[in-house]
Amino acid sequence: MTNTPGRKPPPSGKPVSASQSELTDMILPNDANPLGNALGGAIMHLVDLAAAIAAHRHSGLPVVTASMDHMDFLCPIHVGDIVVLKSSVNRVFRSSMEVGVKVFREESVTNRRQHCSSAYLTFVSIDSSGRPQICPPVVPDTREEKRRYREAGTRRQQRIQHVNKRSVK
Amino acid sequence: MTNTPGRKPPPSGKPVSASQSELTDMILPNDANPLGNALGGAIMHLVDLAAAIAAHRHSGLPVVTASMDHMDFLCPIHVGDIVVLKSSVNRVFRSSMEVGVKVFREESVTNRRQHCSSAYLTFVSIDSSGRPQICPPVVPDTREEKRRYREAGTRRQQRIQHVNKRSVK
Amino acid sequence: MTNTPGRKPPPSGKPVSASQSELTDMILPNDANPLGNALGGAIMHLVDLAAAIAAHRHSGLPVVTASMDHMDFLCPIHVGDIVVLKSSVNRVFRSSMEVGVKVFREESVTNRRQHCSSAYLTFVSIDSSGRPQICPPVVPDTREEKRRYREAGTRRQQRIQHVNKRSVK
Amino acid sequence: MTNTPGRKPPPSGKPVSASQSELTDMILPNDANPLGNALGGAIMHLVDLAAAIAAHRHSGLPVVTASMDHMDFLCPIHVGDIVVLKSSVNRVFRSSMEVGVKVFREESVTNRRQHCSSAYLTFVSIDSSGRPQICPPVVPDTREEKRRYREAGTRRQQRIQHVNKRSVK
Amino acid sequence: MTNTPGRKPPPSGKPVSASQSELTDMILPNDANPLGNALGGAIMHLVDLAAAIAAHRHSGLPVVTASMDHMDFLCPIHVGDIVVLKSSVNRVFRSSMEVGVKVFREESVTNRRQHCSSAYLTFVSIDSSGRPQICPPVVPDTREEKRRYREAGTRRQQRIQHVNKRSVK
Amino acid sequence: MTNTPGRKPPPSGKPVSASQSELTDMILPNDANPLGNALGGAIMHLVDLAAAIAAHRHSGLPVVTASMDHMDFLCPIHVGDIVVLKSSVNRVFRSSMEVGVKVFREESVTNRRQHCSSAYLTFVSIDSSGRPQICPPVVPDTREEKRRYREAGTRRQQRIQHVNKRSVK
Repeated sequence: MTNTPGRKPPPSGKPVSASQSELTDMILPNDANPLGNALGGAIMHLVDLAAAIAAHRHSGLPVVTASMDHMDFLCPIHVGDIVVLKSSVNRVFRSSMEVGVKVFREESVTNRRQHCSSAYLTFVSIDSSGRPQICPPVVPDTREEKRRYREAGTRRQQRIQHVNKRSVK
Repeated sequence: MTNTPGRKPPPSGKPVSASQSELTDMILPNDANPLGNALGGAIMHLVDLAAAIAAHRHSGLPVVTASMDHMDFLCPIHVGDIVVLKSSVNRVFRSSMEVGVKVFREESVTNRRQHCSSAYLTFVSIDSSGRPQICPPVVPDTREEKRRYREAGTRRQQRIQHVNKRSVK
Repeated sequence: MTNTPGRKPPPSGKPVSASQSELTDMILPNDANPLGNALGGAIMHLVDLAAAIAAHRHSGLPVVTASMDHMDFLCPIHVGDIVVLKSSVNRVFRSSMEVGVKVFREESVTNRRQHCSSAYLTFVSIDSSGRPQICPPVVPDTREEKRRYREAGTRRQQRIQHVNKRSVK
Repeated sequence: MTNTPGRKPPPSGKPVSASQSELTDMILPNDANPLGNALGGAIMHLVDLAAAIAAHRHSGLPVVTASMDHMDFLCPIHVGDIVVLKSSVNRVFRSSMEVGVKVFREESVTNRRQHCSSAYLTFVSIDSSGRPQICPPVVPDTREEKRRYREAGTRRQQRIQHVNKRSVK
Repeated sequence: MTNTPGRKPPPSGKPVSASQSELTDMILPNDANPLGNALGGAIMHLVDLAAAIAAHRHSGLPVVTASMDHMDFLCPIHVGDIVVLKSSVNRVFRSSMEVGVKVFREESVTNRRQHCSSAYLTFVSIDSSGRPQICPPVVPDTREEKRRYREAGTRRQQRIQHVNKRSVK
Repeated sequence: MTNTPGRKPPPSGKPVSASQSELTDMILPNDANPLGNALGGAIMHLVDLAAAIAAHRHSGLPVVTASMDHMDFLCPIHVGDIVVLKSSVNRVFRSSMEVGVKVFREESVTNRRQHCSSAYLTFVSIDSSGRPQICPPVVPDTREEKRRYREAGTRRQQRIQHVNKRSVK
């Protein structure tokens, strides 16, 4: 079972909606420095959790984090803020999945959401002894989902080149 | 500013969608007993958080829990399970809000959601010195939202009677 | 083995004192909102823990929360406050137990306790595969314990009616 | 204001009962190593909390830990065990208090308590800028309380000698 | 005060040793999934903490996370494992610092360390109202430190290009 | 296998460097009282963790805390402070190890370390069913390590006398 680009996904494929997840949380004092700024690590922890939930929903299997791409923290988040994380599986590469996560901070009076971070994580689905397991492919439906599917392929190429470059050195 | 039943809500009213919240989480070992059953208190903690987020979104103010109605735990939840909590403000009574929360447990392979608990909580919106603050009324839109709005009024009467009965004793 | 009111409890019954528990804790920053008010969910978590300890002491078995009755938060609790929770099993209904919990907040200078909440929870004792197990009955001794035993029967009737009413709908 | 032994305590003295505290808790997975043995540090954390509550109840002031005497762990404690900590202030030395704490582990079926640890901690009561504040003396009442009061004096001498010996070196 | 490459750092520069940090921790059950694999997010949380400590040591100021570069999880980490994180500031760009972090897992019998992850994070030093503050430059000393200093400049160029590419779209 | 003083340690002995550990952490709000002073119990928890890591590194086996000697808190530690704990095994007595831990608080601007606490803990190495296991002896190398080795023997005598005195009573 392969799912290289251009090949029609097998019937067992799942739509993106099967993995779409929304995680809402409130920043507590232990997630912040003494000035009240959320620790980057606390946000990354939530990002990984939101991505793990999407990967688990898609694969129906235990999952482990294999990598996280570059992530920027575009706006400060404070103690007491509501944060919303939206995640979904963009594409499957045999036993690994690229998951996209967006982090929003919510302004209290206006309910307006401010985009704080985007992240792409790779998860691998495993069995109970830790061996990688093949996942059903993603079947992108909307224009947006198809763009993400396509770009996930490009990002995967870059990750492979990046690893090769380092191992050549 | 009052919002007794039958009276048209003032223009500053907010739709139910303004407070609708979805909170997804994974049950960790510390949320469970040694057999792996989620502690009731860990679920209640999430229920209160989901409700507080909805109440905060509706009011745009700090909120505190005033009460929680009877809550049943209809199905066991285990370590590693994904739980989803959906919450929204059903109705406002001056500075207090009734928030409804539904708790679902998600089956991993089928992604089917099992309904585990329903809860109605009352929150009060306050200013920074703890004094109650008037909230914008809820403007129910769908048939379902209107039923919840109406029933929230009945539940409030029951809560008031319940308090009176106890104080007469 | 039944333990309907009016029937003499079997010799294996246990006194209320066997389950009486006292749990004292200090409210930490993560249990509170940014204004320093204890989260309702943090208090509920402690209430469930205090009740679980009493239920476990009475039954000598693992226990799980089946329900919590309506609970009011009568006074604000703050970061740094000492809270005291008193719990005991009021009555047994085969494999389920009604546990009463009272929450007090302690004033620091006077040591005076302020009553903040009362809650009635139902726990079920289970074996290691989750099957309900019959518990020894409670043998109420003092006038107060007998009143609680009697009222627990009334509350149980109300809970059953409440469930029936919902399932008829 | 001094409270040397033999001198009648000033009227503002408080009985031992004013500080007697009971803290009950359940050991959760994060408090234990992978074999399920409670971490010594998790128990020490509870011991310090139980002592701080007693010291705070006695003094009505914020308190900080100044020292803990030698402490043995006499019996293994496991995940899921109920632990009970009993604490009270034995004696006051101006702004410092000796607090005694006993740790028990509870056997689930028999409810029998096993004595696991005893500890003596010294706390100092402070004002909001951290300066030591004089505490009311302890007025021991029972034979047992008087013995502890007397022995607290001996232990204090040993602590002072211990510090002197080190600083001479 | 600027510290562009090629320019001799001002005398107030600090050596790399001033920020070198070592953080050792044990993986607890709540940091892992039910199979006992450490959550990626728990490791990222530690990575951010190790980096924040190095950045704080270098700058002597509060710091906030601005970004984290791509990070791979090269080996599984389990509950009970000892992890060691080594971090130091590679280079300063006015108010931002690149911090390098290496994560090791320690084999228990042999004490051999296995390299699990490398990460580059950017931190910004701020004053108490959140405004960026200029940091002292890093003065690399060893051959290895000079290589990291040089490569940090290259990575910064890539980050800037990456941001520009996205904003052009 | 015995390792009484004066006897040459068997070849399987390990140098002190095999167990030397450094643990760095940042004090978070939940580790402190409302005035921002780190709780003594939070520091003890870190001390036990630092000691457990050293004992585990030396023995390559699971370890449990058997005792902690008198510990003073010599300087206040605050929320946001960086604390550094250094630990190593001083000497082995069959299946038990004396571990020394030093706690430092780091001044942010100067990076100067202030010595806050010293502690001696005894750990026992066990197998998976909790039975004590013989550990390899410590081979002290430097003058300082030899002094600690010698003094650990004296402290052990005092601990044994202390236990005997109590059991005679």
